[in-house]
Amino acid sequence: MTTIHRVFNFAAGPAVMPVPVLEQMQRDLLALPGVGMSILEISHRSKTFESILAQAEADIRALAAIPSNYRVLFLQGGASLQFSMVPMNLLGAGAIADYLDTGSWADKAIKEARKVGSVNVAASTKADGYSRIPSASELSLTPGAAYVHMTSNNTIEGTEWKTLPATGGVPLVSDTSSDMFSRPIDVASHALVYAGAQKNMGPAGLTVVIIRDDLVAVSKSRTFTLPTMLNYAVHAENDSLYNTPPVFDVYATGLVMKWLLALGGLPAIAASNERKAAKLYAEIDRTGFYRGTAATDSRSLMNVTFRLPSEALEKTFVTRSIAEGLDGLKGHRSVGGMRASIYNAFPEAGVDALVEFMREFERTQG
Amino acid sequence: MTTIHRVFNFAAGPAVMPVPVLEQMQRDLLALPGVGMSILEISHRSKTFESILAQAEADIRALAAIPSNYRVLFLQGGASLQFSMVPMNLLGAGAIADYLDTGSWADKAIKEARKVGSVNVAASTKADGYSRIPSASELSLTPGAAYVHMTSNNTIEGTEWKTLPATGGVPLVSDTSSDMFSRPIDVASHALVYAGAQKNMGPAGLTVVIIRDDLVAVSKSRTFTLPTMLNYAVHAENDSLYNTPPVFDVYATGLVMKWLLALGGLPAIAASNERKAAKLYAEIDRTGFYRGTAATDSRSLMNVTFRLPSEALEKTFVTRSIAEGLDGLKGHRSVGGMRASIYNAFPEAGVDALVEFMREFERTQG
Repeated sequence: MTTIHRVFNFAAGPAVMPVPVLEQMQRDLLALPGVGMSILEISHRSKTFESILAQAEADIRALAAIPSNYRVLFLQGGASLQFSMVPMNLLGAGAIADYLDTGSWADKAIKEARKVGSVNVAASTKADGYSRIPSASELSLTPGAAYVHMTSNNTIEGTEWKTLPATGGVPLVSDTSSDMFSRPIDVASHALVYAGAQKNMGPAGLTVVIIRDDLVAVSKSRTFTLPTMLNYAVHAENDSLYNTPPVFDVYATGLVMKWLLALGGLPAIAASNERKAAKLYAEIDRTGFYRGTAATDSRSLMNVTFRLPSEALEKTFVTRSIAEGLDGLKGHRSVGGMRASIYNAFPEAGVDALVEFMREFERTQG
Repeated sequence: MTTIHRVFNFAAGPAVMPVPVLEQMQRDLLALPGVGMSILEISHRSKTFESILAQAEADIRALAAIPSNYRVLFLQGGASLQFSMVPMNLLGAGAIADYLDTGSWADKAIKEARKVGSVNVAASTKADGYSRIPSASELSLTPGAAYVHMTSNNTIEGTEWKTLPATGGVPLVSDTSSDMFSRPIDVASHALVYAGAQKNMGPAGLTVVIIRDDLVAVSKSRTFTLPTMLNYAVHAENDSLYNTPPVFDVYATGLVMKWLLALGGLPAIAASNERKAAKLYAEIDRTGFYRGTAATDSRSLMNVTFRLPSEALEKTFVTRSIAEGLDGLKGHRSVGGMRASIYNAFPEAGVDALVEFMREFERTQG
């Protein structure tokens, strides 16, 4: 057997997967045990897949302690399609939806919602370059709004909500694409939670939606006008099998959920994520050579963004880090700088390697 | 190394994949050669993936001899989402779209289009249980229609268009989900071709759309009103990278395209498919014990549908075939009977095994 060379992958998503999960998928790729077919070949109507789907849902429910009045849906199209599905299903004529504008993805969600109905931007930190999460006193929420939409972690800007906004009973909808299952989540305080799988849950191609029954009912009233594939009620009634789901991605996500449960669930992974992020932020703060771009109280545990003293040094940093097997540290093209994405499956050894590299880089280039 | 037990998988989709493709994916699952990351982990913005995507497109273009004024798009949501995207992008107010109603999926496409605009069912074989493709003289096409929509192969009913309908210059849109790349395709006679990948192209989760430039331009005029993710022009302008595509599915489909090219392309696979189907239909026609459900001149080379003398015998047939390692022969729940789906990757040895089983079954049960 040849040795497999793997780099430390700091990409923002698609992102690093747990090695034991990759190994299991590899072992069973030609044929699932006892099935005689690859997971890539099995019918979505087969008992085998029904059981894989049901187990993935059960494990997600167990991990996040999802109350029984919520449905878990396995969809396609990423968070970007949710930007449209949320208002198309939930924002009726004459109603207003509140949006919290905390980053580039929140801004995209707002633009899509405006195609559908009336939007109130109830808070925005755009003027601060999205470097912070707004405080409670900055929110101008609309009483009786159809919903409040937030982005729990801002992947590009490296900020993260530490507590949920109080919406006074208005349904809270959260795009949790980049921090889903990285820490305990209070599902009961949300009405709808959605996330593209490709950061903390599985491969690109799957979107997980957790939706409260009363929102499914609202969506149900639009079944005959909305495109069927964009209707939450249709997917809920068909147990995510209205049409062919992304079978492999559901399977892979299920394996990642098992891996998380075996680690000790969300409290355990949160402790690991806090430890990894603390090491990295400590290094950023150590001398002032590196500069964190997010306000200290808004710092993301998933996407650690920082700058160097000059763009020239940043370029050198990227080139040298890649040569050292530290991949994907270049920040998003819209903001520049560095970004270390350290999702659940990112190994602490990779954080240690980055910290060591940063020290050495500062020593030789600083 | 343990022996891998694989059954013959007659499922209608997701369906059997080429074993050499599965083996290559398995070998490289922990890390793509020279990349140090799994295909499940690489950024869709990485040079590695850009090259995988570009190669998959180039191979699709080579296979189907796609003219340069067509775009190839890699999308999500399956044919079911295309049922909505086609009219949302192409059926303007005051215009009419012609639909050819040849099966259960064509009927679903019609239902979705009616949510969007005016639909004329230009031909229907519903009264005949969708057992045949309409003749040219049966089509009542609308002069100046926005487009004509057809379903090239009817997966559930086992029928297939042998020649394209003449639309007199009206753009022809075809759902080719279940026979894409099973035989040469005259792309230039179509304006738009779409297919879910999970039958002949790759795993479930990818939808391939081939669209002529003038239809992209029509779609462009709706960029500011349509949901961004449902707009062909957006995906064309972003080279299928507007948001995170299903990275693994694009990779897998690319490998299947390479496999097809190495076999000799579409003429070679068509010859193989004709041979496999001929063997099976010959057995169905041999004594009258089995009864093909599709009209002889409409028989699909992909989905071979047949009945037995009684439903009791059909039940026994299904049970015994599974015991013999012949899986997925039960017909679609909406029509009953048997269905053998024998897509590109389905091995001829499996057809031989089924023929042998059918003879033995008739001998002992007939």
